Amino acid sequence: MARGGEAVPGPRRAGVSGNGRVGPVPIGPAEYAQRARTASERALGAAGADVIVLFDDQYIQYFTGFVFSPTERPIALIVGPDGERALFVPRLELEHAEALADVDRVVAYPEYPGETHPLELLLAETRRLGVGKRAIAVDHDGYPPVMGYAPVRLSDLTDAKVVSLGVALDEQLALKSEHEVALVRESARWGAHAHRLLQDGTKPGLTEDAVVGAACAAATRAMSASLGGPYRQRNRWVRGALAIYRGQIGPAGAFPHALAHDATFRVGDTLVTGAAADVYGYLSELERTMFLGEPSAEQRHYFDHMLALQDLCFAAIRPGVAAASVDLAMRAYVDEHSLWPHWRHHVGHGLGQRIHESPFLDLGYEGVLEAGMILSVEPGLYVPGLGGFRHSDTVLVTTSGIELLTDYPRDLASLTLAA
Amino acid sequence: MARGGEAVPGPRRAGVSGNGRVGPVPIGPAEYAQRARTASERALGAAGADVIVLFDDQYIQYFTGFVFSPTERPIALIVGPDGERALFVPRLELEHAEALADVDRVVAYPEYPGETHPLELLLAETRRLGVGKRAIAVDHDGYPPVMGYAPVRLSDLTDAKVVSLGVALDEQLALKSEHEVALVRESARWGAHAHRLLQDGTKPGLTEDAVVGAACAAATRAMSASLGGPYRQRNRWVRGALAIYRGQIGPAGAFPHALAHDATFRVGDTLVTGAAADVYGYLSELERTMFLGEPSAEQRHYFDHMLALQDLCFAAIRPGVAAASVDLAMRAYVDEHSLWPHWRHHVGHGLGQRIHESPFLDLGYEGVLEAGMILSVEPGLYVPGLGGFRHSDTVLVTTSGIELLTDYPRDLASLTLAA
Repeated sequence: MARGGEAVPGPRRAGVSGNGRVGPVPIGPAEYAQRARTASERALGAAGADVIVLFDDQYIQYFTGFVFSPTERPIALIVGPDGERALFVPRLELEHAEALADVDRVVAYPEYPGETHPLELLLAETRRLGVGKRAIAVDHDGYPPVMGYAPVRLSDLTDAKVVSLGVALDEQLALKSEHEVALVRESARWGAHAHRLLQDGTKPGLTEDAVVGAACAAATRAMSASLGGPYRQRNRWVRGALAIYRGQIGPAGAFPHALAHDATFRVGDTLVTGAAADVYGYLSELERTMFLGEPSAEQRHYFDHMLALQDLCFAAIRPGVAAASVDLAMRAYVDEHSLWPHWRHHVGHGLGQRIHESPFLDLGYEGVLEAGMILSVEPGLYVPGLGGFRHSDTVLVTTSGIELLTDYPRDLASLTLAA
Repeated sequence: MARGGEAVPGPRRAGVSGNGRVGPVPIGPAEYAQRARTASERALGAAGADVIVLFDDQYIQYFTGFVFSPTERPIALIVGPDGERALFVPRLELEHAEALADVDRVVAYPEYPGETHPLELLLAETRRLGVGKRAIAVDHDGYPPVMGYAPVRLSDLTDAKVVSLGVALDEQLALKSEHEVALVRESARWGAHAHRLLQDGTKPGLTEDAVVGAACAAATRAMSASLGGPYRQRNRWVRGALAIYRGQIGPAGAFPHALAHDATFRVGDTLVTGAAADVYGYLSELERTMFLGEPSAEQRHYFDHMLALQDLCFAAIRPGVAAASVDLAMRAYVDEHSLWPHWRHHVGHGLGQRIHESPFLDLGYEGVLEAGMILSVEPGLYVPGLGGFRHSDTVLVTTSGIELLTDYPRDLASLTLAA
């Protein structure tokens, strides 16, 4: 039943296609501006503030499209009462930000540590803009610890009240626009292509790096050509179109988050993959459990339970239900089949531009699923000495249930590799 | 003057060699334990606390050797008054931590968000250990924002005083042991090897990804074989032995921190490279400005200034001088030669396990250089429309000046590629 070689996905026309769906073009200035206005309208009143200051690079990207490598030099976004945006960057990033950030203005400070602390200069800039005198709404009370940055609290540097935005921004990010859904769908298409190359290239005796390197290079080239390259990285976590093992080969797969080892594939290995693609900053998540050679009875046993778990999680997702209920459904099955020794984590999480974000499909998450959310569904089982058993698919919550955005075989026969 | 093909560095004997230098073996349990005792002795008295709680993954790695991918699930290290270490991890990471972390014990909590907030469970664990009743010394007041984690302050969850360790830990990290210096030296050796492959493989008409991919794969294979593979990633920023361009090809090099584009090399390009290697978690930094074909008068002009700047920075570094004085020396030259339009950043930074850390060779950094510090020296000039001009070398501060740990030609002829 294993599928043969798959053709490279064909080119798509850029822009809005005949059926009204937005094709693979980057998020544009109108959507960035609307996001900032929405955040201002929702958050400022609640916080009693007239300005939002954001330090998290992922929020900054969401409101400006500016992608950068966070370092010890703080970068912050100032969002005013009408959604106007000023990006505050070190001198190092000025031209880069001017070229690529969708903002009203870019303001540069000299350097970190610098003669004056960058956060003092940031506060001076808000005063210059005439905002933030009484209260400043923030994602975080100061720039977070990155590399060698020595954190100081913004609230220790100003008489204004520094108010946390709490989960308001994450609630905004969780509901995807039609354009965002189209980009995640396109990402899933290229993740599947990379995964096919990975699966077809995996043979006993080859090493992880060689197989992964070839699959990623070919998939990224094909994606760049289709999107109209050259490719420029816009996602913090994923570069190009990729399919990887992260060291989850054989017994090492029992560590869900192992960092990569350059293992050699052996007959009998249980394999856990991960595939994704950066399409204009948006990603997706596709993971499969595969076997190198015919699986043993034990391997089949855990595979079947894992597949049943994912099926029941798919069935539990629909708008209006508590996110926690999906985790509870998974837990009930784990209870019933005495699988707790093999449980390690909850069902899944939101994603889009960030690789993990709320909502979490977790017992302790307070929140209800809504149409327009994009989630990973990835209940896993882990067996020391044998390996990991986890499929992950990316789903869109629709008005009636889910749409699978990842399209890749899930059954045992399709995922059993010739030895 | 361009050097010919360089042989792969030969194997080194593991362990302590005849001249007493420590060879390329990982940091061992005795050094991790000593680091924790040193931190306890220095920090606890000053903070009036009997326990240290650390959230930054880089500090955790420094005190335990445990390398992990930070996610929204908090991980924390509890260091007791005698340097005893308990690692607090999500259930997901329990076996991984037990296998790889050098600690006295590993404690797991179920999941994030979970029914009880992980930081509440962390505080319960400190109470169980009988510490942290009056005061807790921390690197950060709670787990920092990572992926979709919604930060809460540790100080809001406890009646104990939460006291910042400030720069005490960074001061400890800045002074490298003999073993750490040996690992950075070995990293520099493999970075140079990768860089040679990158330089030799760069030709007009080829693309960035193809050239970089080939150099990194070959260098990583050679390094793994020499160190006694398989290779396992232990550094957060660098995987294997690598040499890259990060999109700093031609005019795009005028952005010091451009994310990669898959550009095609063209005759006349100014190129800025970056090379490093992960040797048991330690890294180094080697960057070179190169030209594809004979450089123009303008390219020579900026190259010569850049080289003069790096030379004067090398000469300014010695124990006992203020770190800021090196930046001031660079600035005096920039002033004298009217180069401010091309200035973007300070001279350099500490490194070791972290890619950027204190001390910073920056005007505003208060601190004195000491023997045993490892620094990048990388004054740069940036010319819009033409590109970037920056060499970076990794140096050890010795009792009398510096030792260059990176060994790679710096002169124009050696860095001019055949067109």
